[in-house]
Amino acid sequence: MAEEVLTQHISHQFDTELRTLRSQMLSMGGLVEEQLANALQALKTNDEMLAKQVYNNDYKVNALEVTIDEECTRILARRQPTAGDLRLVLAVIKTITDLERIGDEAERIARMSLQVQGGIQARYYLSVHHLGELARQILHDALDSIARLDTEAALAVIRETHRIDGESESVNRQVLTYMMEDPRMIPLGLTLMWSARALERVIAHSRNVCEYLIYFLKGKDIRHISLQKVEEEARQPHY
Amino acid sequence: MAEEVLTQHISHQFDTELRTLRSQMLSMGGLVEEQLANALQALKTNDEMLAKQVYNNDYKVNALEVTIDEECTRILARRQPTAGDLRLVLAVIKTITDLERIGDEAERIARMSLQVQGGIQARYYLSVHHLGELARQILHDALDSIARLDTEAALAVIRETHRIDGESESVNRQVLTYMMEDPRMIPLGLTLMWSARALERVIAHSRNVCEYLIYFLKGKDIRHISLQKVEEEARQPHY
Repeated sequence: MAEEVLTQHISHQFDTELRTLRSQMLSMGGLVEEQLANALQALKTNDEMLAKQVYNNDYKVNALEVTIDEECTRILARRQPTAGDLRLVLAVIKTITDLERIGDEAERIARMSLQVQGGIQARYYLSVHHLGELARQILHDALDSIARLDTEAALAVIRETHRIDGESESVNRQVLTYMMEDPRMIPLGLTLMWSARALERVIAHSRNVCEYLIYFLKGKDIRHISLQKVEEEARQPHY
Repeated sequence: MAEEVLTQHISHQFDTELRTLRSQMLSMGGLVEEQLANALQALKTNDEMLAKQVYNNDYKVNALEVTIDEECTRILARRQPTAGDLRLVLAVIKTITDLERIGDEAERIARMSLQVQGGIQARYYLSVHHLGELARQILHDALDSIARLDTEAALAVIRETHRIDGESESVNRQVLTYMMEDPRMIPLGLTLMWSARALERVIAHSRNVCEYLIYFLKGKDIRHISLQKVEEEARQPHY
């Protein structure tokens, strides 16, 4: 399907440019996914080296954003794309902004892991672990739907993000109990809450990415509308 | 200066489109500014009606984002702008994303104000009040630099955001003390911390907006570089 949607130009050079753009965006996605996985691992195992690695690699995410953004501007100026090509470039511009912010959240989790003295006991980490796995899976599926240019897969991700809405609230409630029982738990509890919040942001950014994909494929802006309406809109034939 | 930069087209219609685009973006900025002011007021005075008003008005911010975004796409497709015009449209696309997210943060603060039972005592609110005033001022100055297309004003905002970096950390430390002393303070302390975090995000988004303005005026992407470098780059003549 990817091939079919993307190969339509008389200019082979333009085809190549759009392909390169898309593959750069996917590389950026891969890097961000790795950053998130490492940040969560660092938080779980109190691995200072790994946390610092995440922290030090954030510039790579930022550099990719700037490079891809420049490439988009160059394509807009030189190729003056319209219709689907224009939507592709605009979707890329928006997607990389969200990917960069997922990178920021990963960095934030890595920084927080450095603040925890002596590591987080397994029973406390558990409360955030589940949300961490959900966020990783959702980011992975979102990137996968982009790689396969798959509307149904993107819709499934959006549905999943709606299903787990409030998951971080449940982490917060659980952690609040520990904190109220024992004030010495407060600093650790805050780290868990901030991490849950960062993961919630990762999930929201992943949802945005899927919305941009549907915009590219279907020509419809589905932001800020209800899930039911999203599904209806996305399933209509492309106009 | 605004006139000089913006009036350059043989097509009056195109001039009008770009002017309208810019004025719509400024209206969206004004609305977001009002939302933030009302959210902070609701938090300070425990005003439930006002909080609900902020919550209910968020759709207006979202609707403006979608309208302006569509207008940008239409201009890109029909006018195929290059150079400064292209940068203007791209800067608008990015700016409205950040404005929409400032709107989200305002809504978040309004929601949190609803959770506080019986209001926040003045001495506790004080810790977040200062940061709230800073965030409002920075957002105001950022929008003002856009209205006046003023590089120096945008640079001043960016400098200010760097100067107050860590202000929310200081709120957190202060609130942590209350929480450790009296666990009954934990829920209120969390509201203050989440609010401080939302305000920190407002400041970061305002900085982004100024960076896009400099990109539009100077053709240079100054994201992810040091403050000193930002000032050097922005002050070089436009190439």
